[in-house]
Amino acid sequence: MNRRFIVYFLGYVLCFEAAFLVLPWIVSLIYGEPEGLYYLGCIVVYVLVGGLIVRNKPDDMVFYSRDGMVATALSWILLALGGALPLCLCGDIPNYVDALFETISGFTTTGSSILRDVEALSHTSLFWRSFTHWVGGMGVLVFMMAILPLSGGYNMHLMRAESPGMQVGKLVPKIRSTAKILYGIYLGMTIVIISALILSGMPVFDAIAIGVGTAGTGGFGVKNDSMASYTTLQQSIVTIGMIVFGVNFNAYYLILIKKWKQAFKMEEVRVYLAIVATAILLITINISGLFGSLYEAFHHAAFTVGTIISTTGYAATNFDLWPEFSRFILVLLMICGGCAGSTAGGMKVSRLVLYVKMWIKELRHLVHPRSINAVRLEDRAVDNAMIRTTSVYLICYFLIFFFSILVVSLDNFDFTTNFTAVAATFNNIGPGLNVVGPIGNFSEFSVLSKFVMMFDMLAGRLEIFPMMVLITSMRHGFKKFEKGK
Amino acid sequence: MNRRFIVYFLGYVLCFEAAFLVLPWIVSLIYGEPEGLYYLGCIVVYVLVGGLIVRNKPDDMVFYSRDGMVATALSWILLALGGALPLCLCGDIPNYVDALFETISGFTTTGSSILRDVEALSHTSLFWRSFTHWVGGMGVLVFMMAILPLSGGYNMHLMRAESPGMQVGKLVPKIRSTAKILYGIYLGMTIVIISALILSGMPVFDAIAIGVGTAGTGGFGVKNDSMASYTTLQQSIVTIGMIVFGVNFNAYYLILIKKWKQAFKMEEVRVYLAIVATAILLITINISGLFGSLYEAFHHAAFTVGTIISTTGYAATNFDLWPEFSRFILVLLMICGGCAGSTAGGMKVSRLVLYVKMWIKELRHLVHPRSINAVRLEDRAVDNAMIRTTSVYLICYFLIFFFSILVVSLDNFDFTTNFTAVAATFNNIGPGLNVVGPIGNFSEFSVLSKFVMMFDMLAGRLEIFPMMVLITSMRHGFKKFEKGK
Repeated sequence: MNRRFIVYFLGYVLCFEAAFLVLPWIVSLIYGEPEGLYYLGCIVVYVLVGGLIVRNKPDDMVFYSRDGMVATALSWILLALGGALPLCLCGDIPNYVDALFETISGFTTTGSSILRDVEALSHTSLFWRSFTHWVGGMGVLVFMMAILPLSGGYNMHLMRAESPGMQVGKLVPKIRSTAKILYGIYLGMTIVIISALILSGMPVFDAIAIGVGTAGTGGFGVKNDSMASYTTLQQSIVTIGMIVFGVNFNAYYLILIKKWKQAFKMEEVRVYLAIVATAILLITINISGLFGSLYEAFHHAAFTVGTIISTTGYAATNFDLWPEFSRFILVLLMICGGCAGSTAGGMKVSRLVLYVKMWIKELRHLVHPRSINAVRLEDRAVDNAMIRTTSVYLICYFLIFFFSILVVSLDNFDFTTNFTAVAATFNNIGPGLNVVGPIGNFSEFSVLSKFVMMFDMLAGRLEIFPMMVLITSMRHGFKKFEKGK
Repeated sequence: MNRRFIVYFLGYVLCFEAAFLVLPWIVSLIYGEPEGLYYLGCIVVYVLVGGLIVRNKPDDMVFYSRDGMVATALSWILLALGGALPLCLCGDIPNYVDALFETISGFTTTGSSILRDVEALSHTSLFWRSFTHWVGGMGVLVFMMAILPLSGGYNMHLMRAESPGMQVGKLVPKIRSTAKILYGIYLGMTIVIISALILSGMPVFDAIAIGVGTAGTGGFGVKNDSMASYTTLQQSIVTIGMIVFGVNFNAYYLILIKKWKQAFKMEEVRVYLAIVATAILLITINISGLFGSLYEAFHHAAFTVGTIISTTGYAATNFDLWPEFSRFILVLLMICGGCAGSTAGGMKVSRLVLYVKMWIKELRHLVHPRSINAVRLEDRAVDNAMIRTTSVYLICYFLIFFFSILVVSLDNFDFTTNFTAVAATFNNIGPGLNVVGPIGNFSEFSVLSKFVMMFDMLAGRLEIFPMMVLITSMRHGFKKFEKGK
């Protein structure tokens, strides 16, 4: 493993963290909040340490897939550790473990919170919390790719390890251009949603925080009741925003270069929209008795389906009180998640499509043993390596899922709470049901459970494998250390 | 598809059903119960109809894997339909849907019951209920193989489609001998456990019913409190029995031919016993506060772990009241199940071992991309076809699992009830938690939910694929019918 390169790379990450922290510091200047000083302090320290590391460029820049995975996993952990520090120091979240939970939840665009009273936070910290969603949404490293003058194959390794979904659609041959295009689309769409919210009469601070939270499909709000006290129009804007940010960004790129037909033919996007429509329809029928009008039921069904499938996690109503049928549809949407190549989490629609196709192929093979059908996705045959990796992903997914519930159940909450708490963190959604429902929070869990869920959030965001490789490498490292090497 | 052969085969199944029904009829003679008349009536009708069908031997005896799957699925459905009839006619379970649920639960060795008051049943029906477990335990068709003068490849197709586990260990080259050996071991061990129970002072009727229920890892009891009112010694005998019948029967065959070393080296058996020991240890510690002594806690932990992992489903205590950690371990054991080639249900330990190995292999491949390691099980390399089928099994498993919960949740019970009701039926266990906990039952579900769970019980018992092929073939059949062919 190329350790020196990884350390060098982490130096850059620290510098970027400092750059990100400038924004909340500016917010503190606007609102005249003393909390900003701690943010400034962190910026100075991170720049100094990061700069010092970056000055020593390693001679050996050869970089393998494994190094990419380890570097990615460590980058996210470092970002979270560094991002939690000002939150803790300034006194907004005095407990460092809680601050770390909140920051990981932010960067991974989960939106699960340990805060009982969000409104007690300073504007500075509120903004920082929401902004981490935006940074994490499209991937921090993709952001770095777009700016850093790195080149060569290792960019690809990093981007692969981090990007949400099975494939980084190579939009254009050069990786740096791809990163720039992705962030360009992302930024443009974020500005649109913030503008729409401001035009609808939302206070500018709220609009920015909720806009970046929607774009990153994060879900941290600035009010204790999340989105419930905003107007129906504002909720509807966010509904559309959440569903839109759950779509594969390749579709937007295709629209951008005016390949409309290709964009609307994308299999994953079609299935995603079909799932959204079906879920809204079923839930609207199921909950119609709870609301005054069918429109109101539809409005809340659409908001909640959007918030869950895009793994955002805002709440406009307490869906924990809905009938079990609707509640379970939400659990299914939690596991499903948005499209690959979007800012959403979860298993990803393309993976589900692949699973269903593998199933159909096997059935066909049983009925007509001589038939040979390759599994096709987006009009291309899926190779065996992809099928194998996707199968193993499913195995890992459920092993981590069930093991996490086992540890969390030591806290002796009910099964629904444990199951949905893990589902909500592992799939980067935010709220679950019962204790962790839309009006609840994660503060009551033990430190052990919190660490398990922090791991789940990172593993979910990085699609499991980087975290697994990190653990394996750490074990190797310990063994070497023990042997005195 | 060779329809004529399938019909011919089903004729035999009907004759066998008649033969099985003779035993409860004898019980009715012993206890002088009028219910026996209905059993006699069914025997006569089944022999007549079955005999009539069997008289016409089809010319074409060519038989493919697909036909085997369809024949197997239909055999089990026919057995259940026919077995439910006397239960319903004699008035013990007047509702036919409920009788069908109970019979499917019996043949599939599930043990989930819709009865609120088991003790109100006649001895005849009580015996029939428990005896279906024994018949279903090792597979009805394996039983037929051992007796019927059929020969050739199609036996293998049937046995493959039905036998619990991924592989039918070809104990000896000739399939008929294998079936005979399996049933020989099965019968011998059943006699041992019944004798032990009688020696411990249990009434003979109870001992036989509970003995065959333990051997088939079924779980229908003859008392309303299942096993709770029996002595600690009797409970301990059943504990050992349940764990023993969850072991791969290949191990017993190896012991029988004195290949001790090979028997104790079987990977699956070792892992199974390790899981049992770990689960008992963890639960004993977790529940020690609930019982008077550590021994008592151990006794109940062992009984409950045995009953769940072997998918039997007897209850000696209300484990629904245990702490969430223990409850969730039980949920995990529900999904895990016993060994392949045993009478237990669930996913099977060998499949889990294979999943974990596939995971480790993938990790190794990520860390050392050039390494090539085949996945090995029981000292043999696992081929790609097996890995593919096992992966697809996992996909089907969770698709059916979650879709079933979705339909069942229409009844608006809580998530824990729905999740564990489906887990308990799909994995052929019996009781779940909450409403379907050890002191509850399945009577309150809607007819729709009951049909979903009947499907789950059959799909679980037949390891999913035969039921899937049946549905696919039925769809093909309908299409042909519509086209007027």
